[in-house]
Amino acid sequence: MPDYKAPLRDMRFLIDHVFDFHGHYAGLGATDASPDMVGAILEEGAKFCENVLSPLNRSGDEEGCHFDNGVVTTPKGFKEAFAQYVEGGWHGVAADPAYGGQGLPSSLGLVLSEMIGSSNTSWGMYPGLTHGAMSAIHAHGSQAQKDTYLTKLTAGQWTGTMCLTEAHCGTDLGIIKTRAVPQANGSYALTGSKIFISAGEHDMSENIIHLVLAKLPDAPAGTKGISLFIVPKFLPESGERNGVSCGSIEHKMGIKASATCVLNFDGAEGYLIGEANKGLNCMFTMMNHARLGTGMQGLCNGEASFQGAVKYANDRLQMRSLTGPKAPDKAADPIIVHPDVRRMLLTMKAFNEGNRALAYFTAQLLDTAHLSADPDQRQEAEDLLAFLTPICKAFMTETGLEVTNHGMQVFGGHGFIREWGMEQLVRDCRIAPIYEGTNGIQALDLLGRKVLGSQGKLLRGFTKIVHKFCAANAEHPQLKVQVAKLNQLNQQWGELTAKVGMAAMKNPDEVGAAALDYLMYSGYIILGYLWLRMALVAQAQIDNGSGDPDYARGKLATCEFYFKRLLPRTATHRAAVEAGSECLMSLPAELFAL
Amino acid sequence: MPDYKAPLRDMRFLIDHVFDFHGHYAGLGATDASPDMVGAILEEGAKFCENVLSPLNRSGDEEGCHFDNGVVTTPKGFKEAFAQYVEGGWHGVAADPAYGGQGLPSSLGLVLSEMIGSSNTSWGMYPGLTHGAMSAIHAHGSQAQKDTYLTKLTAGQWTGTMCLTEAHCGTDLGIIKTRAVPQANGSYALTGSKIFISAGEHDMSENIIHLVLAKLPDAPAGTKGISLFIVPKFLPESGERNGVSCGSIEHKMGIKASATCVLNFDGAEGYLIGEANKGLNCMFTMMNHARLGTGMQGLCNGEASFQGAVKYANDRLQMRSLTGPKAPDKAADPIIVHPDVRRMLLTMKAFNEGNRALAYFTAQLLDTAHLSADPDQRQEAEDLLAFLTPICKAFMTETGLEVTNHGMQVFGGHGFIREWGMEQLVRDCRIAPIYEGTNGIQALDLLGRKVLGSQGKLLRGFTKIVHKFCAANAEHPQLKVQVAKLNQLNQQWGELTAKVGMAAMKNPDEVGAAALDYLMYSGYIILGYLWLRMALVAQAQIDNGSGDPDYARGKLATCEFYFKRLLPRTATHRAAVEAGSECLMSLPAELFAL
Repeated sequence: MPDYKAPLRDMRFLIDHVFDFHGHYAGLGATDASPDMVGAILEEGAKFCENVLSPLNRSGDEEGCHFDNGVVTTPKGFKEAFAQYVEGGWHGVAADPAYGGQGLPSSLGLVLSEMIGSSNTSWGMYPGLTHGAMSAIHAHGSQAQKDTYLTKLTAGQWTGTMCLTEAHCGTDLGIIKTRAVPQANGSYALTGSKIFISAGEHDMSENIIHLVLAKLPDAPAGTKGISLFIVPKFLPESGERNGVSCGSIEHKMGIKASATCVLNFDGAEGYLIGEANKGLNCMFTMMNHARLGTGMQGLCNGEASFQGAVKYANDRLQMRSLTGPKAPDKAADPIIVHPDVRRMLLTMKAFNEGNRALAYFTAQLLDTAHLSADPDQRQEAEDLLAFLTPICKAFMTETGLEVTNHGMQVFGGHGFIREWGMEQLVRDCRIAPIYEGTNGIQALDLLGRKVLGSQGKLLRGFTKIVHKFCAANAEHPQLKVQVAKLNQLNQQWGELTAKVGMAAMKNPDEVGAAALDYLMYSGYIILGYLWLRMALVAQAQIDNGSGDPDYARGKLATCEFYFKRLLPRTATHRAAVEAGSECLMSLPAELFAL
Repeated sequence: MPDYKAPLRDMRFLIDHVFDFHGHYAGLGATDASPDMVGAILEEGAKFCENVLSPLNRSGDEEGCHFDNGVVTTPKGFKEAFAQYVEGGWHGVAADPAYGGQGLPSSLGLVLSEMIGSSNTSWGMYPGLTHGAMSAIHAHGSQAQKDTYLTKLTAGQWTGTMCLTEAHCGTDLGIIKTRAVPQANGSYALTGSKIFISAGEHDMSENIIHLVLAKLPDAPAGTKGISLFIVPKFLPESGERNGVSCGSIEHKMGIKASATCVLNFDGAEGYLIGEANKGLNCMFTMMNHARLGTGMQGLCNGEASFQGAVKYANDRLQMRSLTGPKAPDKAADPIIVHPDVRRMLLTMKAFNEGNRALAYFTAQLLDTAHLSADPDQRQEAEDLLAFLTPICKAFMTETGLEVTNHGMQVFGGHGFIREWGMEQLVRDCRIAPIYEGTNGIQALDLLGRKVLGSQGKLLRGFTKIVHKFCAANAEHPQLKVQVAKLNQLNQQWGELTAKVGMAAMKNPDEVGAAALDYLMYSGYIILGYLWLRMALVAQAQIDNGSGDPDYARGKLATCEFYFKRLLPRTATHRAAVEAGSECLMSLPAELFAL
């Protein structure tokens, strides 16, 4: 396994310079997130992830989770690492101080989660799901529910889950079958079966608090008849075991150390959270955070893969450079001399650093939406978040999967061997384009609900930013060519959107036909904008003599690579968007295979 | 696991109509390959693969191979299936009748191997490697060597391997360390260690014949000092165990039922095959066949994945069509109504059927190169083969991997669960872009050695065919738009090549920088040509009222999809080729990660 080293320099480049987290926190009155605190989270978080989580990554994959008669045991070391994490105070970093959290902004929680996910994706699922459950209870629970559950969850004494999917439905939650029947004592009896429940059963915590979507007896059909319930594994008052049990765990392609459970609810006692029949709305309020978190997985696995690939490309000796030997004293040159190996490494680097910028940019919007005193600023942040979230989720996971595949390819045959750990990153990453809403669903959300649903307003909220940026930097001595390219694409983006919008008015299938390519097209332009923001800072550092010139040079070279070799992919995605729906829909379903 | 059904209709469409295998065989005097024989191979081969091999595919993946103190046991049922395969006479279908084979043309062997690889890739490795060893002995062995080894190998009594890679070198065979010391009796004593040896040790055959690359004591440095040796596991005369043993087997991402062995040669007795120091040349003569075979893996895994995905997309009910319910009597519509699901399915279908056409087209060239009485025709076929082989290997495996990933995605969360078998196809396919020369190496072979190395002659050999085709069909009533598009790309292909060639004269790194994208660009154009050939036949069938109009309609719709949604990817690859090497080479190696 590549030993994970937190890329603190790149993280700091974004935090300190490109996005000025310190000014951002000060502006939001988030005084606890002082530069010292940010530094401590980075330094100490890195140590924990490098020293505790990273060493458990490959062993966790090899061992997997154990299921025995309803009891799930996590791989060796996982439980102890969780105890250490809780003891170190990491679990409540971004949680509400009213329930024992440190109250730091979401963006700092995200920075920490990047390091966790990069060092051990499977392990990170356990606290990750708990944070999701905490958000739901915090946003929608009664005060009594908060008092009962949030304190224990924040302390890491209990963990949480999100129980949505059933065997016959994942995307289409309107047709779930789990039922909740009101009881005399005000609680509900839940009966049904949920699948794909991450952290649904395990040995890391005293209690597990399930948040469960179910239907009341008189519920309207479809998504408007879904309610959300708290169903604890052990009832908080009596300590009795509740009627929920783990029927089995899944055998999966990757994230094998994350227990993916079938949970059977057999008249389990549950408590309504939020309003009846508004359960899906409760879920949606957490969606931005959860989807950004899933997008992060593309970055996390990609970063780990890049670290392994760069090291290997410098160590592995194979063939001579076509321009003459570069290591004449050795049997062959290190493979990093070969242009095609560099193509793979630079693609990885450009996506990882670009995706990190996208994630941090979006995380600042989360902070602003939560913390700003100015309602207009909050609304603006909410709008940008609504627009960017599906792109973060889908673009970062599509490109992250590409990155992990390149990392494996750099290793040649050794990449296919488990021992090296590179193929695990591909397997772990492969779930990210699927779960938390498939990328196809993200794309429909972006183009249908967000962009066309707002008559283009949410898109314009972003293109306006890019337009201003391009106008301000149109004469930049070193970067004006790229600025002009970005400006051109930014205009084309609006035109393409208008074209799809017109077509969609005649035929709603045009939205579905264009959606995934539209999302990818958008993602490439957004990353172009973010790469230029990074390049501007790097160029300024070189001009000023501040910062590390070598590091800045790497940024500029990668930006150049991005504009020359990756941004042109927009042409293909645009052509696919323009191709329209007919070539997808004309063939009757029964003629696909004969 | 999706139950494999041989796509006989599509195979016959190519064999009977598009490529007229019957006329092709008659023209080459391959009278044994009569239409009846072709039919029997298809029908009976399909039965064997569907009924014997396909049921062992997932169990083989789950069980894997066992290693115990040098002994390798293949998964349950593998040995018996091999015995059945041998008993059915399949092993010698394309082998020389002088040694007990049936002597059918290579292309028929390839058709059979498609069905084998689609139903069970891992199992197919064992006979596949044996065929490789047989070709080497047939082409380069002495008569005595042929007599000793070929008869038993053809009969499937013994199996074979190819031992090239060592721990420190795979691509760069010039630096192998295995040594061969001449012995008094004319044999050689081989000492060294080989890795990644597929079928290196197993329980399926009485004896295993290793073909081993090694260096003589006085060998020149580099690739010109490599010799090829036959090293049997048991010495044929005495029956004694030779000094070769299996040190371990690899734990891999996929093809887990294929034993990938470390083989230790400890003064093992070996026999020089071909000339001393010409071992790599011996290997190269088999390369076309082996690389086409590896390219097939992309098609094989892709076909299996498509079969699973189409079935699931018709069965799985989820959400309503955006244009209104299509199955109003059910809880939701089958997901094949959604444009984005169709995008994935049609991408799979277009690549699979296009790749099958590419493979069969190339296989006919193999036949011609072997069997034609006309030396000019042989040379022309050899030239086209030299050009097409790296494209078959790399393009078919890159797109095949994409196809298996789409197939998994169609299944949503279930795609990630091992039980469904879709993720196995991704894992199995993932090795194909790596082994038998990485796709990066294929790309260098294509652009550097083949295209630029022939001053463009090998490219022109193909573009001429496309040019004639476009001229002949420029006025085709239904297809002229696509013909014009193909013609335009065909011209651009030559121009782009000239541009790279000019740049490469100044800087050899331009070749490496352009190579992979150039190969993919070429592959898309070639598939465009082949899709039009299929569409022409389909349109003619509709016009004539021959054939099945539904099937022909599927072909035309998929061709349309290919031209609208996949062929535009050429734009991106061209842009990457034109981007040049500087943006890859400017960053010093030590600045890739800081």
